[in-house]
Amino acid sequence: MSPKITTELLKQLRQVMKNPKFVQEPVQAYIVPSGDAHQSEYIAPCDCRRAFISGFDGSAGTAIVTEQHAAMWTDGRYFLQAAHQMDNNWTLMKMGLKDTPTQEDWLVSVLPEGSKVGVDPFIIPADQWKRMSKALRSAGHDLVPVKENLIDTIWTDCPQRPCKPLITLDLSYTGVSWRDKIVALRSKMAERKVMWFVVTALDEVAWLFNLRGSDVEYNPVFFAYAVIGMNTIRLFIDGDRMMNPPVREHLQLDSTLEPEFKIQVMPYGSILSELQAVGAGLSPKEKVWLSDKASYALTEAIPKAYRYLTPYTPICIAKAVKNAAETEGMRRAHIKDAVALCELFNWLEKEVPKGTVTEIIAADKAEEFRSQQKDFVELSFATISSTGPNGAIIHYKPVPETNRTLSVNEIYLLDSGAQYKDGTTDVTRTMHFGTPSAYEKECFTYVLKGHIAVSAAIFPNGTKGHLLDSFARSALWDCGLDYLHGTGHGVGSFLNVHEGPCGISYKTFADEPLEAGMIVSDEPGYYEDGSFGIRIENVVLVIPAETKYNFKNRGSLTFEPLTLVPIQTKMIDVNLLTEKECNWVNEYHQKCREVVGAELERQGRHEALRWLLRETEPLARVQ
Amino acid sequence: MSPKITTELLKQLRQVMKNPKFVQEPVQAYIVPSGDAHQSEYIAPCDCRRAFISGFDGSAGTAIVTEQHAAMWTDGRYFLQAAHQMDNNWTLMKMGLKDTPTQEDWLVSVLPEGSKVGVDPFIIPADQWKRMSKALRSAGHDLVPVKENLIDTIWTDCPQRPCKPLITLDLSYTGVSWRDKIVALRSKMAERKVMWFVVTALDEVAWLFNLRGSDVEYNPVFFAYAVIGMNTIRLFIDGDRMMNPPVREHLQLDSTLEPEFKIQVMPYGSILSELQAVGAGLSPKEKVWLSDKASYALTEAIPKAYRYLTPYTPICIAKAVKNAAETEGMRRAHIKDAVALCELFNWLEKEVPKGTVTEIIAADKAEEFRSQQKDFVELSFATISSTGPNGAIIHYKPVPETNRTLSVNEIYLLDSGAQYKDGTTDVTRTMHFGTPSAYEKECFTYVLKGHIAVSAAIFPNGTKGHLLDSFARSALWDCGLDYLHGTGHGVGSFLNVHEGPCGISYKTFADEPLEAGMIVSDEPGYYEDGSFGIRIENVVLVIPAETKYNFKNRGSLTFEPLTLVPIQTKMIDVNLLTEKECNWVNEYHQKCREVVGAELERQGRHEALRWLLRETEPLARVQ
Repeated sequence: MSPKITTELLKQLRQVMKNPKFVQEPVQAYIVPSGDAHQSEYIAPCDCRRAFISGFDGSAGTAIVTEQHAAMWTDGRYFLQAAHQMDNNWTLMKMGLKDTPTQEDWLVSVLPEGSKVGVDPFIIPADQWKRMSKALRSAGHDLVPVKENLIDTIWTDCPQRPCKPLITLDLSYTGVSWRDKIVALRSKMAERKVMWFVVTALDEVAWLFNLRGSDVEYNPVFFAYAVIGMNTIRLFIDGDRMMNPPVREHLQLDSTLEPEFKIQVMPYGSILSELQAVGAGLSPKEKVWLSDKASYALTEAIPKAYRYLTPYTPICIAKAVKNAAETEGMRRAHIKDAVALCELFNWLEKEVPKGTVTEIIAADKAEEFRSQQKDFVELSFATISSTGPNGAIIHYKPVPETNRTLSVNEIYLLDSGAQYKDGTTDVTRTMHFGTPSAYEKECFTYVLKGHIAVSAAIFPNGTKGHLLDSFARSALWDCGLDYLHGTGHGVGSFLNVHEGPCGISYKTFADEPLEAGMIVSDEPGYYEDGSFGIRIENVVLVIPAETKYNFKNRGSLTFEPLTLVPIQTKMIDVNLLTEKECNWVNEYHQKCREVVGAELERQGRHEALRWLLRETEPLARVQ
Repeated sequence: MSPKITTELLKQLRQVMKNPKFVQEPVQAYIVPSGDAHQSEYIAPCDCRRAFISGFDGSAGTAIVTEQHAAMWTDGRYFLQAAHQMDNNWTLMKMGLKDTPTQEDWLVSVLPEGSKVGVDPFIIPADQWKRMSKALRSAGHDLVPVKENLIDTIWTDCPQRPCKPLITLDLSYTGVSWRDKIVALRSKMAERKVMWFVVTALDEVAWLFNLRGSDVEYNPVFFAYAVIGMNTIRLFIDGDRMMNPPVREHLQLDSTLEPEFKIQVMPYGSILSELQAVGAGLSPKEKVWLSDKASYALTEAIPKAYRYLTPYTPICIAKAVKNAAETEGMRRAHIKDAVALCELFNWLEKEVPKGTVTEIIAADKAEEFRSQQKDFVELSFATISSTGPNGAIIHYKPVPETNRTLSVNEIYLLDSGAQYKDGTTDVTRTMHFGTPSAYEKECFTYVLKGHIAVSAAIFPNGTKGHLLDSFARSALWDCGLDYLHGTGHGVGSFLNVHEGPCGISYKTFADEPLEAGMIVSDEPGYYEDGSFGIRIENVVLVIPAETKYNFKNRGSLTFEPLTLVPIQTKMIDVNLLTEKECNWVNEYHQKCREVVGAELERQGRHEALRWLLRETEPLARVQ
């Protein structure tokens, strides 16, 4: 992978930063965040402005360009990738390391006195604006909104904003109708005494209306906003997709409805002016509820005294707790996904020794097997198919320049998942198709111990996920090993593969308490730069646990793995496992056999079934 | 313990809340925080305003009195104690429980529109003021500073502010001279480009000048402030204690010194006007560094643009990392402390069966044995000597009304410590002088497993202590048990027994990373309301660890117990311990034998030595 040459682009950007056509006053620095106007993690090509200006296309990163410097902040998952993709114009700022300055501190250290720092007010979340603006102001600088996005002014071949058809989901998938979701939302609004709720996150709009789209790759969402009043529903969405009869019927656009359920459809681009009109018409005590991560532009549309900002919206919280229909859908999706992976690993086992399987071929084959399954829609993220040293690039995606051939001499790490109409999957398995070294097995076994420690953890109802993060690290720490990423993220139900408000990470303390029905990933890892990467990931469902004393009736929780794909026993150093851990692996494999085995049988996939049976032979611990 | 009758006091308080002699406008609510003007945890009798108005005298709690209500917020350590000490005028607000409103939310729910909420600006920390003021303002109320403390106006027999003599500490105790500490502080100030540093916490003043006092019980501090400029040192302190020749010599008050080390001594009460003068005389870019927990009154003395606020001051951070002289002092102090406790437990074992030992007698006896040790100064906190159900009151202190007699039928919990000139101790042991039940042993063993999990934890350099908290709970959680307090706190070196900026708690995320030389407590527990309390506490030193892979040279850390007091093996269900845990107990006891045994021998305490030898017999695990 050769870095993108950005000398000319940066020169152009620095020119428009001073061009009175675009900026009221010259800006000495310009911030290019990663997100779109909805603060999405995965974004449409037209929103990949940070990748355009820098070459670095990982999912997280913020670029700042000044007259002299260009710097990129990203986290441990992307240190190697960013270093590979960016040219010498860029300085990589490794977030999470002790000596890395914050964006604010760095700006203060490089800017001349009284500088203006520009940013697109639609792209920067209000909470980030506030923090950065305050830090800059206290150092004598100003954060200023630049209405025209400066990257767009130099991006001559910027793609169009997508506007693809919508999918409607019926009750068998969602469990709850959009009308009932509106009723529940309004009751939360009434509780907090707010009159309006502004839905800005794309997955929240999709979840609320039981609609899905494909405007953004991997995330089945569509560009839209919604503004919900106590008696009105406004949906801001473009294109003729609202003319589609099933969509009209689903939303009851042509029925005679009680007025409070009548959806007014408005152009996507009119959200700001409509919201400004709402803001201007508020009576005293009428509050408007927004996520504190909504864009600065939309937040500013509501006068400060009328804003009610929370880190997590009531939709985000309701969406995280899956109902019975969603849970059952997720189970079905994970069984189908396991069938595809059993096929894949069986195929790899035969093909890898021939030396003809590259990372890209393996990724494509995984997609092919998944696409054979019922209700398959698309992948849920770019497949991380990585062998040997590429495995140490935590969010690696194979491209022709980096594409390695799988061999019997290297560890292979596959982190992949799919969107099915009944659920979203995300699974990582680390395999060796030859004979792993003792060190590789040792590291793999520590990672497995961490995976089990989280998966089998029992904790009181209401515990926040971040309190479980260290369980995943303890076995690694004992030997002086660690990994530079969190342990788990929330997973949507045929929605974004990464969602809030819960997760398992040392970094997040604002997560909401875990409760039964939430779904998160459990994915500790270990990465040896230049050599290999190991990660073991299951998607797990929070379920009630049976404990001897049940926390004085507070209730006990634990996890149930939804992912049912064998963990390669060849990679396990059984002597490093406790009896309890060994039993966990055996019981897990027994469940894979029973549940996935039955489905393989049903689908007539006999060779993959034989592979499954062989891979799930019980471990025997030497006593 | 009968509750304090507060009907008349509340009536008087509600009158002065409307009395124009004390308030510019009537206040509809008055907040009585726990702290003093230095935000101390332990306070002088003259500052115990919250206890005076409510009867509840635990170390943490905030009272709010409105025209109709009186409510007290406190945490899990004090739920039972507060319920016992307060009469029916008061509502107990159990912090940490899901349904308990915050002070702000509660105020908003009970106050009439447009209310004024008063508070003493010297008592409320600036960060709390800011948070509360914002929340109240957004609901249409106002937080207002009431200069005259309203409790003082009705507290007719309020004691005098203490002003006791000072102790000077030489280099053999402190390791670093006060001049060198000033030099280091100024270098931190230069790094952050601040011109002034205001020392507001009492332990920070004491540490900086290598002085100790006894104005506050248990904490060897004295009422003072300091303002450090790049070329000036101002110490605000009352009384004739600065006339004491050793103090004058220690501070070189009468020597010809470089001007930047010349200490100007000023009256304690002049801090506000002096700081206002500093604030008024600042040139642009001259910043003043304050803790964000400094009082609102002092913070307001510096115009906002000139303030540099941080959660932890450079003194707080420097003080936490003990140097070799301090570490050695702490070791010595803990050995002496262990000698006293061996004597105590040997004595208790003989006396308890006679039925003549009460909780108060046991606590007094512990103090007597400690006071026989070299350099003993005082206790480091009120001894928690609790038997049976009293043990479940987490911060219990025996008083005549509650004083139970120790017996062979109940668990006895002793949490105690002392100030020695060379160090501060804090140790909890839970003992049974008869035959513990299987359930008591089971619970004790889970607590012990948690204690060991933290004490033996290995983690990368720079890990924050809160990431270790769940290790202490895991064994309890597995059986559906938990405890409602943090696992550890920083410990001062002949200073406050609770100090920042590090600790081990699920509640604190703003803690500074652990580094070698820091000292914290490790004290998981389990409490069965109405029956018993169990806690096992050692003070532990953060030390470098040896690990196989050493975190890619980031460095490994672990803990070394400084406390060396046997853990009662009678209470341990050995079958619940892993081999590793069993070895930990045996090695710990071996060290107690060697180190404390030698000191008992040296002091000729042969009976206590025999007790120690018996109590440290190795555990034998049934294989």
